[in-house]
Amino acid sequence: MTLENAWPDLTDVLGDRVTRSKPELEAHGASESYFPLTLPDAVAYPETTAEVSALMRICSAHGVPVIGYGAGTSLEGQAQAFSGGLVVDFARMNRVIEIGQADMDARIQPGVTREALNEELRATGLFFPVDPGANATLGGMASTRASGTTAVRYGTMRDNVLGLEVVLADGRVIRTGTRARKSSAGYDLTGLFIGAEGTLGLITEMVVRLHGQPEAVSAAVCAFDTIGDAVRAVSDTIQMGIPMARIEFVDAATVDAVNRYSGMAMPLKPHLLVEFHGSEGGVAEQAEVFGDIVAEHHGHGFEWAANAEDRKALWTVRHHAYWAILAARPGTRAVVTDICVPISRLAEAVEATQKDLEEAGIPGPILGHVGDGNFHAILLVDPTDEADLKRVKAASDRMVALSLEMGGTSTGEHGVGIGKKGFMTREHGDAWQVMGQIKRALDPQNILNPGKLAPDAN
Amino acid sequence: MTLENAWPDLTDVLGDRVTRSKPELEAHGASESYFPLTLPDAVAYPETTAEVSALMRICSAHGVPVIGYGAGTSLEGQAQAFSGGLVVDFARMNRVIEIGQADMDARIQPGVTREALNEELRATGLFFPVDPGANATLGGMASTRASGTTAVRYGTMRDNVLGLEVVLADGRVIRTGTRARKSSAGYDLTGLFIGAEGTLGLITEMVVRLHGQPEAVSAAVCAFDTIGDAVRAVSDTIQMGIPMARIEFVDAATVDAVNRYSGMAMPLKPHLLVEFHGSEGGVAEQAEVFGDIVAEHHGHGFEWAANAEDRKALWTVRHHAYWAILAARPGTRAVVTDICVPISRLAEAVEATQKDLEEAGIPGPILGHVGDGNFHAILLVDPTDEADLKRVKAASDRMVALSLEMGGTSTGEHGVGIGKKGFMTREHGDAWQVMGQIKRALDPQNILNPGKLAPDAN
Repeated sequence: MTLENAWPDLTDVLGDRVTRSKPELEAHGASESYFPLTLPDAVAYPETTAEVSALMRICSAHGVPVIGYGAGTSLEGQAQAFSGGLVVDFARMNRVIEIGQADMDARIQPGVTREALNEELRATGLFFPVDPGANATLGGMASTRASGTTAVRYGTMRDNVLGLEVVLADGRVIRTGTRARKSSAGYDLTGLFIGAEGTLGLITEMVVRLHGQPEAVSAAVCAFDTIGDAVRAVSDTIQMGIPMARIEFVDAATVDAVNRYSGMAMPLKPHLLVEFHGSEGGVAEQAEVFGDIVAEHHGHGFEWAANAEDRKALWTVRHHAYWAILAARPGTRAVVTDICVPISRLAEAVEATQKDLEEAGIPGPILGHVGDGNFHAILLVDPTDEADLKRVKAASDRMVALSLEMGGTSTGEHGVGIGKKGFMTREHGDAWQVMGQIKRALDPQNILNPGKLAPDAN
Repeated sequence: MTLENAWPDLTDVLGDRVTRSKPELEAHGASESYFPLTLPDAVAYPETTAEVSALMRICSAHGVPVIGYGAGTSLEGQAQAFSGGLVVDFARMNRVIEIGQADMDARIQPGVTREALNEELRATGLFFPVDPGANATLGGMASTRASGTTAVRYGTMRDNVLGLEVVLADGRVIRTGTRARKSSAGYDLTGLFIGAEGTLGLITEMVVRLHGQPEAVSAAVCAFDTIGDAVRAVSDTIQMGIPMARIEFVDAATVDAVNRYSGMAMPLKPHLLVEFHGSEGGVAEQAEVFGDIVAEHHGHGFEWAANAEDRKALWTVRHHAYWAILAARPGTRAVVTDICVPISRLAEAVEATQKDLEEAGIPGPILGHVGDGNFHAILLVDPTDEADLKRVKAASDRMVALSLEMGGTSTGEHGVGIGKKGFMTREHGDAWQVMGQIKRALDPQNILNPGKLAPDAN
């Protein structure tokens, strides 16, 4: 066994911060999603870039797979060691190293969670906007090119990471990007490592872009009689160029689950949840235009959440939706679909999906970041029932096929892992083989998160 | 000679759209900048992706270098055939294929110029914002990761290209990206080809992101007594989160040249030129806050250009600055520096640059996109005088060194070509070698724009 040969060197470098204890392996072998428990061979907790480089050299010498691990919240199996190997947990590399107040950036370690970062930023007047719901680590969010509720305004991780420090497969440490806001100096390596799911290198440091806390924030919720009305209101809002900070959709089934879970009493109809950021005057103006659009599409029950507490309650509803839906059927797991279509096809895509799920008799509340054209169906499944899992995955596959037909993508924000690998040829054609060429160039032994995202090595 | 062997096959595919006529070679051998005339071996004018693929296969079979060519406006020698070979001029691939009104995107061929695209968009209520000054082609702008006056608000080419069709070194045709607004489906190949200067593939089609024409636009110009005051006003504006559409700096020497060239009578002081986009109310509010900031930094002579004609005049001044400076000394060429520093170091960088140029006795008007921390000095040089060129390039090198010391980049928007290649190791360290690994993986024969950007093949 290859790890056996690497073990003495790994313990030399990491001491008791590398472990093969059963509970540790189990804690790192589980998935948020429907993938089965898969134990890695060992788990490491490095504290420095030098340690990550050293462990990478050791694993390279012995051909041991290395899988980066943040908060374990990824949904397509990205952090699971399906080929065995060493899981590198960045929990101890969780420092905010430097906040650049004037440059509106922060240099951080990859194990910092987005909530921890925003906690540290609270007094600065700045914040980090990307919000995938889960309290993921920034390193994990970069690696899956995460986005979430605020991407419609502030962009995804691709737009909010200025530079990286990365440990390559052979242990070399490189830095990408600078502290400048833009550059034309060569290939965009920062962009290449973002979304690479740890298959090209391990991120050990990041410079992230911060934004000014808005002077004024207001949020609202409103109901629609049909999904089509709600989604068409979103399209119109985007068309009008209203700079929404968030514009989220939940369908009636999601509202039902949330009502039960959070003790709310929202009407059982499709809803939009929106948030405006800007100056006092700007927010008021945006809200007014949005109100007109909603009225045109027969929206009703407009409720404002003007103070911070009401807003927090509103977004808690949205962020708890996933858990609320799971809680509705104890013991189930979810296949969470993640398609993203052109805005012009959004209403059609959501309606077709709902119809398909109804016909298949699969409970699948729909919700998502509709301002980007990105939405999820939470397909509940008994992970121990092979037939059920197969049926649900078939429905998920039909959604992806629909998205690709519409010119969309198989995954808006969850990434590929192993869950979406089967669609890569259909989505990218030969371009997926180009990804394979890049993977082989940077990781010729295929030891960085093998089996994920890229074509299998020959 | 390798082209000789390829010639029969090339003429089979392209007929008289591949040429070795002296005037054609000369027209494609010149540079906007200080690089000497360098004739390619031949020039091709493909009309379809299939033709580009075919010529690429032929050149690959015979080891002929292939250099993409747009409008010839690049500044670091990117489009020149320093190793000989075939220049591929995209002038005949200049169609706007499709405008996606609802999706706010356009599918275009790479030879479309930004002015032609905006002309076609005029009636749609949409526009393409990236504006490097020159009427470059979109393919060229993508290849150098161009930006310009509006990047502070709308981003660079990196942010405004959603997908590409690319012909690879071996003639394969791939598509990157989708029509969806975001995706987590694998490596960001779109981002990899943007800024690659044609060293990884030839762009044959693009999907670009469009933006709504703003409801209201206003622009203004104001003078400052010192460069430091002007630049500190910019920093404060960025800090306040005012969403400026443009915020440009010109120093007194630039104003002098512009006055002479355009018959203006602006005071001989550093100026800021700004533009606001938004709703009527939003623009008014932004202008008011900006006015306060300017006053704090002793700005004066505030002049508004509220109507379209005055605005056009104002931005013509800015866009003619380069030509105005060149015209001040007939027969000269310019070494145009292009550093981009963190905003926190901007005032210091501009002041240090001006002092250095004064001490060296080099005329070098300074101007730039200071909202991004990006500025240029236009260093006039007699390209036939070796000693002068050396002295001026040494001054340019000192600016780059300063930028790198400050955590900035050697090129904010002009790219690497051959002009900035000497700084790549200092800027990127081992990461430049990683760029070389990617280059070798995708172009093992090194026939795509050889000698530019990437490390030389071993």
